[in-house]
Amino acid sequence: MTPKDKKILTAFKKTGARIETKARVQVKKKEDLSLYYTPGVGVASLYLAEHPEDTRHLSVKKNSVAVISDGSAVLGLGNIGPYGALPVMEGKALIFREFAGIDAWPIVLNTQDPDEIVRTVLAIAPGWGGINLEDIKAPECFDIERRIDAALDIPVMHDDQHGTAIVVLAALINAAKVAKKKLPSLRVVVSGAGAAGHAVAMLLAAAGVLDIIVLDREGTIHKKRVGLPEHKQELAKLTNPRGIEGDLGDALSGADVFIGVSGKGLLHEGHIREMAPRSIVFALANPVPEIMPDLAKKAGALVIGTGRSDFPNQINNALVFPGVFRGALDKGVSQISQEAKLRAAKALASLVPKPTPGKIVPDIFDKRVVPTVARAIR
Amino acid sequence: MTPKDKKILTAFKKTGARIETKARVQVKKKEDLSLYYTPGVGVASLYLAEHPEDTRHLSVKKNSVAVISDGSAVLGLGNIGPYGALPVMEGKALIFREFAGIDAWPIVLNTQDPDEIVRTVLAIAPGWGGINLEDIKAPECFDIERRIDAALDIPVMHDDQHGTAIVVLAALINAAKVAKKKLPSLRVVVSGAGAAGHAVAMLLAAAGVLDIIVLDREGTIHKKRVGLPEHKQELAKLTNPRGIEGDLGDALSGADVFIGVSGKGLLHEGHIREMAPRSIVFALANPVPEIMPDLAKKAGALVIGTGRSDFPNQINNALVFPGVFRGALDKGVSQISQEAKLRAAKALASLVPKPTPGKIVPDIFDKRVVPTVARAIR
Repeated sequence: MTPKDKKILTAFKKTGARIETKARVQVKKKEDLSLYYTPGVGVASLYLAEHPEDTRHLSVKKNSVAVISDGSAVLGLGNIGPYGALPVMEGKALIFREFAGIDAWPIVLNTQDPDEIVRTVLAIAPGWGGINLEDIKAPECFDIERRIDAALDIPVMHDDQHGTAIVVLAALINAAKVAKKKLPSLRVVVSGAGAAGHAVAMLLAAAGVLDIIVLDREGTIHKKRVGLPEHKQELAKLTNPRGIEGDLGDALSGADVFIGVSGKGLLHEGHIREMAPRSIVFALANPVPEIMPDLAKKAGALVIGTGRSDFPNQINNALVFPGVFRGALDKGVSQISQEAKLRAAKALASLVPKPTPGKIVPDIFDKRVVPTVARAIR
Repeated sequence: MTPKDKKILTAFKKTGARIETKARVQVKKKEDLSLYYTPGVGVASLYLAEHPEDTRHLSVKKNSVAVISDGSAVLGLGNIGPYGALPVMEGKALIFREFAGIDAWPIVLNTQDPDEIVRTVLAIAPGWGGINLEDIKAPECFDIERRIDAALDIPVMHDDQHGTAIVVLAALINAAKVAKKKLPSLRVVVSGAGAAGHAVAMLLAAAGVLDIIVLDREGTIHKKRVGLPEHKQELAKLTNPRGIEGDLGDALSGADVFIGVSGKGLLHEGHIREMAPRSIVFALANPVPEIMPDLAKKAGALVIGTGRSDFPNQINNALVFPGVFRGALDKGVSQISQEAKLRAAKALASLVPKPTPGKIVPDIFDKRVVPTVARAIR
């Protein structure tokens, strides 16, 4: 463990938890207890038993989001289980609270069985205003999200998919402006065909990008590949119009954009030199990106983004998920449609009207971000 | 709905929720995010993946309790489901926060199947420091608690059973002093053989009370009754030494103590008149007790208690559960033993060294209550 890592761990040990609960009402005298506990609470209980649809107006359901993970695909760290996942979910709960005033709590699961995950989330759902699924590995995540979303009347979002897709599209809209290229004519390479890669490709396609190539560990995904799981079959059908076969180098030759949602160090300077002029490199693997920004710059990339807070152009879901859930909770929106995601990405991009190589997305502390994204959710 | 009920409902609507989350660390600048979110959080994640036993030192697990109910036996209101249960669980979370500084969150379940409940609680357990089961009906609650407690290494307590039993024993220790009667020689009648009734009878027996009669809707529980479920067979074996058969009136004839954990209005003035002199009446059904205190007094009871905040002698679990979990969390206690419960009851009683008919338990706002109960848990 490096000295820097030790310092981080000490900070975590010192705080214990990063979030806690807080009373929203006074409990100072008998009358307070008579109202909010027994006997008063019985009135609210009987009322909600008869009017369950009002639960979201007079309980924690009004403003709460469960941040749920099975720990099967945590950051770029892989399958590190529920205990490993907990600090990340807690960090998201902290961001929900600080950026969007949402009461989120981390829930990590002692199972990675899709049926069990679905059953568990549905079982605990009644008291939550929304469900933020997180760091669940592909391909299981697709079916898990679909089934939970279909069964519940509250917003459900696997953030690794849709939060990532929205922020990437927002960043790409502005990066294309910087590179003086049009979105539909971009050649885009997406490294990683998991949760994020699939969702990014789908949303870029919906936004009008015509030439997208997605790669998994075997290489480019194309129509001739056999034995692909369902979500990659979908990618084979909807992407790679030129039918490029091969590895990352083959895909990147002449490409305008690299989007990495895969793993650290996958991208080399040589790759970037083969890309088209004024190239765009989003190396989003966390915590260690596909290429470090200084190397990407040295190799000639014009616009460079990572997912991290300690480099410029932080293309991070944290720009998206607080606003998405803020909007959904405030307006009683139960499904985050593809149209809403496109609107959210465009709204986010619009907050940087004159993008530059060093500034394609708004700062995560920009107070306009959450309300702007929230307004796009309807 | 009465005007008073409308006023209560308006208060609930006005606050929305009674609890919320709060940041325990500052998130004001990039460095904060780099530490508590990405990339810093990756260090904590990798560490906990390798040292899961340390989760309770550097995450929300340190100080959190899930308040979980299936809504099958809420207060005295019965099976009103998860939405009906939510305000009660929220009220408990509020009390955990305000009285014991514990981060509790309500989780209401969309299932009443015991296997599903056990599976769900085990699935969401890794991130919690304790599990407070609540308002789950008998006899299912016994097996549910037993199975969850056996599977987890964190404290698990069905408060309707053990919280009630502890506070009742504490109140009875002092009420017996007031009535100048000895605990072992008391004749005690427990009305209700559900979660609370069973646990109360068991803890009083463990405390040395020899003559306890428990009643269910069919009448007294005794050895000749056939077709009894397991927990009532246990009561038949361990209680009712004189083999009294019959109804509440038969059981109460000459009794020193009535403990109602059953339903509103079950106890009449006539019943109390048949009890021994200087009788003790704990009418604990919530929100409406078995008999209203003024009627019990008129009928001759010497010491009268209810579960409510708006009468003297509030014999309420709220005197117990915050301290029990405070003690267990602080000391890493994973099981609340019968000995710990006895110690907690005696410690609670000791806070009123000179009890009177109007004062047998400490005030719920007495700052000594939580630390005193917590010290007894070890």
